[in-house]
Amino acid sequence: MADSPMNPATSAFGPTDAVRHHDPAVRGFASDNYAGVHPEVLAAIALANDGHQVAYGEDAYTEHLQAVFRRHFGDRAEAYPVFNGTGANVVALQALLPRWGAVVAAESAHINVDEGGAPEKLAGIKIHTVPTPDGKLTPALIDQQAWGWGDEHRAQPLAVSITQSTELGTLYTVDEVLAICEHAHERGMLVHMDGSRLANAAASLGVPFREFTTDAGVDVLSFGGTKNGLLLGEVVVVLDPDKVRNLKYLRKMSMQLASKMRFVSVQFEALLTGDLWLRNAGHANAMARRLEAAVRDVPGVTVVRPVQANAVFALLPREVSERLQKRYRFYFWDEHTGEVRWMAAFDTTEQDIDAFAAAIAEEMARQD
Amino acid sequence: MADSPMNPATSAFGPTDAVRHHDPAVRGFASDNYAGVHPEVLAAIALANDGHQVAYGEDAYTEHLQAVFRRHFGDRAEAYPVFNGTGANVVALQALLPRWGAVVAAESAHINVDEGGAPEKLAGIKIHTVPTPDGKLTPALIDQQAWGWGDEHRAQPLAVSITQSTELGTLYTVDEVLAICEHAHERGMLVHMDGSRLANAAASLGVPFREFTTDAGVDVLSFGGTKNGLLLGEVVVVLDPDKVRNLKYLRKMSMQLASKMRFVSVQFEALLTGDLWLRNAGHANAMARRLEAAVRDVPGVTVVRPVQANAVFALLPREVSERLQKRYRFYFWDEHTGEVRWMAAFDTTEQDIDAFAAAIAEEMARQD
Amino acid sequence: MADSPMNPATSAFGPTDAVRHHDPAVRGFASDNYAGVHPEVLAAIALANDGHQVAYGEDAYTEHLQAVFRRHFGDRAEAYPVFNGTGANVVALQALLPRWGAVVAAESAHINVDEGGAPEKLAGIKIHTVPTPDGKLTPALIDQQAWGWGDEHRAQPLAVSITQSTELGTLYTVDEVLAICEHAHERGMLVHMDGSRLANAAASLGVPFREFTTDAGVDVLSFGGTKNGLLLGEVVVVLDPDKVRNLKYLRKMSMQLASKMRFVSVQFEALLTGDLWLRNAGHANAMARRLEAAVRDVPGVTVVRPVQANAVFALLPREVSERLQKRYRFYFWDEHTGEVRWMAAFDTTEQDIDAFAAAIAEEMARQD
Amino acid sequence: MADSPMNPATSAFGPTDAVRHHDPAVRGFASDNYAGVHPEVLAAIALANDGHQVAYGEDAYTEHLQAVFRRHFGDRAEAYPVFNGTGANVVALQALLPRWGAVVAAESAHINVDEGGAPEKLAGIKIHTVPTPDGKLTPALIDQQAWGWGDEHRAQPLAVSITQSTELGTLYTVDEVLAICEHAHERGMLVHMDGSRLANAAASLGVPFREFTTDAGVDVLSFGGTKNGLLLGEVVVVLDPDKVRNLKYLRKMSMQLASKMRFVSVQFEALLTGDLWLRNAGHANAMARRLEAAVRDVPGVTVVRPVQANAVFALLPREVSERLQKRYRFYFWDEHTGEVRWMAAFDTTEQDIDAFAAAIAEEMARQD
Repeated sequence: MADSPMNPATSAFGPTDAVRHHDPAVRGFASDNYAGVHPEVLAAIALANDGHQVAYGEDAYTEHLQAVFRRHFGDRAEAYPVFNGTGANVVALQALLPRWGAVVAAESAHINVDEGGAPEKLAGIKIHTVPTPDGKLTPALIDQQAWGWGDEHRAQPLAVSITQSTELGTLYTVDEVLAICEHAHERGMLVHMDGSRLANAAASLGVPFREFTTDAGVDVLSFGGTKNGLLLGEVVVVLDPDKVRNLKYLRKMSMQLASKMRFVSVQFEALLTGDLWLRNAGHANAMARRLEAAVRDVPGVTVVRPVQANAVFALLPREVSERLQKRYRFYFWDEHTGEVRWMAAFDTTEQDIDAFAAAIAEEMARQD
Repeated sequence: MADSPMNPATSAFGPTDAVRHHDPAVRGFASDNYAGVHPEVLAAIALANDGHQVAYGEDAYTEHLQAVFRRHFGDRAEAYPVFNGTGANVVALQALLPRWGAVVAAESAHINVDEGGAPEKLAGIKIHTVPTPDGKLTPALIDQQAWGWGDEHRAQPLAVSITQSTELGTLYTVDEVLAICEHAHERGMLVHMDGSRLANAAASLGVPFREFTTDAGVDVLSFGGTKNGLLLGEVVVVLDPDKVRNLKYLRKMSMQLASKMRFVSVQFEALLTGDLWLRNAGHANAMARRLEAAVRDVPGVTVVRPVQANAVFALLPREVSERLQKRYRFYFWDEHTGEVRWMAAFDTTEQDIDAFAAAIAEEMARQD
Repeated sequence: MADSPMNPATSAFGPTDAVRHHDPAVRGFASDNYAGVHPEVLAAIALANDGHQVAYGEDAYTEHLQAVFRRHFGDRAEAYPVFNGTGANVVALQALLPRWGAVVAAESAHINVDEGGAPEKLAGIKIHTVPTPDGKLTPALIDQQAWGWGDEHRAQPLAVSITQSTELGTLYTVDEVLAICEHAHERGMLVHMDGSRLANAAASLGVPFREFTTDAGVDVLSFGGTKNGLLLGEVVVVLDPDKVRNLKYLRKMSMQLASKMRFVSVQFEALLTGDLWLRNAGHANAMARRLEAAVRDVPGVTVVRPVQANAVFALLPREVSERLQKRYRFYFWDEHTGEVRWMAAFDTTEQDIDAFAAAIAEEMARQD
Repeated sequence: MADSPMNPATSAFGPTDAVRHHDPAVRGFASDNYAGVHPEVLAAIALANDGHQVAYGEDAYTEHLQAVFRRHFGDRAEAYPVFNGTGANVVALQALLPRWGAVVAAESAHINVDEGGAPEKLAGIKIHTVPTPDGKLTPALIDQQAWGWGDEHRAQPLAVSITQSTELGTLYTVDEVLAICEHAHERGMLVHMDGSRLANAAASLGVPFREFTTDAGVDVLSFGGTKNGLLLGEVVVVLDPDKVRNLKYLRKMSMQLASKMRFVSVQFEALLTGDLWLRNAGHANAMARRLEAAVRDVPGVTVVRPVQANAVFALLPREVSERLQKRYRFYFWDEHTGEVRWMAAFDTTEQDIDAFAAAIAEEMARQD
């Protein structure tokens, strides 16, 4: 393969024995983590390279990162970089819960359905689940599971976890987050926010991060970088250090402590110092809306959930979806109903959307 | 800081909002993971960028990586990239042990002393420890803890874990590994090798990887990349797939499944396709030997362990060490005895070594 | 207190420094584990006393118990006595599931709602829950959660747990259990039965135990003794030893290995050698039916679930229930709806039922 | 078997279908838990029987037990009955340690060698072990593992666990316990005492329990009943409720919550209200001393450890031990050295000792 056009002997960044195995022009709609690294982020990694830096987070980049996060999340925020979203969530939940604690979450929450049982298996955390219409908890929904304090037969519901934006592409408003936090705190429960797509939420809401996190009462946050254009990296952000302590031990023992942490931290610096996070997230959101607009009038296609972030959920004939999948990668969200999910990423282009929308219309037309 | 020489407006890789916070000319002797990323590895990352690739390991780079590892470890090898060494070890040990299993390891093993209790706390793995003179187990030492099968009061010793090269800078010979594996297998125990510095071992032994791993009977291996010049990355290598199964579930639930895995995999491709791994490790080893040679004749400095990989352990007056630490970063290995550890990395230069050796001599001379 | 009628200086069993703190004539309807020990069971304990017996299950009583269980559950059955129901369930589930496994259970299952999170917290077992109308799973209900095999993001559903009789006082027929086991096995899932009230089920179904356990395909069983008249004791019964192995290690590490096991085992011998289990369970069931019959015609009282074992679930005005609770102990089952649960035990008398039914009628009459 | 002398149709306590499978006249020297139940304890169980009592510890006996324990351990003591010693220890250690905590213990501690890995496997507790000459920790020995606070790579040593009397039959003096507690507390560590043979210790020391527990600074205690003449039962005693909280949740989720708890509690009432605990333990200790005295002058037999409680450790020719084992049950303590352990129980008679000592002398004489 080494001499094919896909496999230059050296990359623009110098020689290497690795070869290119993929076509960098191909993009799909399966997930925002199918995308690669934003060039500015890669540049930041190169910038932090060379020479020695103390390992395990005592480097200059991780130190500087604290100021970066405090600017976005308030003066008390503490940033703990980790590897991935599951890691961030499991560390955060352990920090919020004593051994006997349980967390109330939506049935559709990533921590419940997509983490291979990591919260239960590795951290011994019971999840009290609540079915929701749109992936969002409310005080009333929380109350379906928030009871039984003092009764040792019930795993004690001592935290609530909400996802912003949700797994169903929906958003909590600032007031909704506030109401949940108030409700939880009044009952002695702490609040975790799974923000693997927090930038998409902020871009869509049009408000600073802290308005719907720190200021709304969230106690600890999983802040997502990977889906926002990083090579890899999430940050557990402690928003209320009075309530969430000793996170460094939990991060280490949860196998989430990077030795060369400078390279995780500097990516977040590239993302959050200026507006890269907003450009990336805002663009992905816009591309999802463009797709929604393009398919809205295609007969037989129904967008079944509000498009509030970077995901479009649609119903169309299963055989159409299957033919489409041969041209573009995307997933069935619900095998029973045939609902599909289409996601836009920071690198999705208008041309990608238009070509995909045309393909959808084309395959729908072949139906008859 | 943005306009200081340390903070170029753009890196060689292009513009970014991140700034340089460190002096890339400074290197120390504290750890091989204080070093950064080898330029060829960074080039490989850039090469794998752009366009979409399936997440969670179904990308073209991870697919290709299988062939890369099979070339080094035999036709049955299976490579599972993970984030870090603790993650690799905890995944590997879970794969080797049933719920009731325990692992026999040297008291000085990284899994026992440096992982924040991750094996016990997250994976419920009991470690039966054995004191060793040099960080190395032997069949006789293993037998100190390998007993009690069938007795439910004893956590069942069903695996042995050895580190190559060891935490004390020593090496197992091919025959020593072979004897351990044979001994373990005869007793129904499987063998894990913690190879966070496996390249240093191979470079020093002057034999291919598989001679002291697959062919010697090791069942599962934690193969280290980070200390060999990667940004980040280790690989759990299943050497005997008949004995180690279902690793993919364990990796995911242990929070070690990278979404954009292509960027982990391509780094190992850069390392292992040609001889980058050997150049890096061989150089680090040579620098350690150079340092040993340079201090051997400094009166008052004693090298206390064989220098077989990239670490030098030495005894010298504590106040000398403390003055030296103001000039170069390194650690006390044993607070009680005052023993220090000096490590060389892939980017340590001959000049670094010579300057450091001169500083040692200088500070020793100030003793009188 | 020592000379009050409640505190005889000696019991019928001889002198003791303990005194009686309760009135042995008082019985309520809160739970079948509010009852004490059946006299024949106490006599059996005394019989096994004196002299020395090997601890931890190598005694003559535990050996004999194997034959007792094989007579009821088939020639391959293996009996592992444990302390309590949560212990039995957690040991059994660990035996059925690899580290990455999950169990499908009814939302109302004891393992999900009443064990303080023990399965998740101590054993790392994820429970995939399904809402049910009557506490009973069906193949179709199981399929709501039995999917995603091979996908590492999903905790693998590798077992099904059903309760017989259920937490809602209902029963699986022989055919229903058979259909569930067949369905589960076809999909590679094993079947656990939580039989903390298995005797009540057998008494009500009128068939031998093995017809709806071993012969129906159940793989491992939690057999309940405590609610059937023992002082304490449950047995994990391995019905298919090809599938469930190494239980002795799991029992020990789950803190369920009794040192003086002879006293647990001999109780089961007293229960299961003759028909004591049937007398006790049949009587409790009959008392529940008597209560149902007695309140059926009380206006304002509705029995809301089929009375198939020893529990009656009823709806009546909340204030009536609260007045009743001052006279007889019982629980609200559902705080929201006001549904109450009345349970009969092996020692509930016809007079108890009649007096309670009269009290219900009386308090209802005071309503107007 | 039913008509053999060993199998009376009914016991002295009434009819039962169980039969006697053992000879109540046979006693050995293998373990104090080979003994049965003291008659006064059995009488207490019978006393607590009949009628209904609230399950799960809200019964009158468990309530009264609080006063019983406060009398022995001070006004702040809280008693939580559990099933067995491993359960008591695992519950207590969880109560003392945060998720990231580790406990320092002697290598020979029961929690390290005899609990099937329960602390690590079920509760995620790392044990930092220290070799000791006699099973006893000292401040200096503790310091071998009590270090590294603040370093997340080290499982944080936040508790010390000592066993009284120890697994080697030795005793801590009051002053020794005091020194350990002071040392631990000064370093921010809490103290657990494994008192599965606490009564033997108190009897031997000749001081009240509280002098070497509460008053010496112990924070939480596993108080043993089984080896002191109970059918079954241990109590986790919280001595400093400011430091050890929420134990009831930990007991339940650790599968140690008895439903018919009255029968566990009343046994302790029988033991601790008067002097039954002291009679039983003092007698067992005296029998061990009697055995020591009897074998002291047998040539070829060496008692190798101080006999301070109810165990005698001796060295004699292996073949003699093996012949002896055909006549009396006991264990090799150390397969390598041939050291044996002989234990006396509350029911060991002077005749038993004298006959055993005679047998030892006899078998020794056959040596020549």
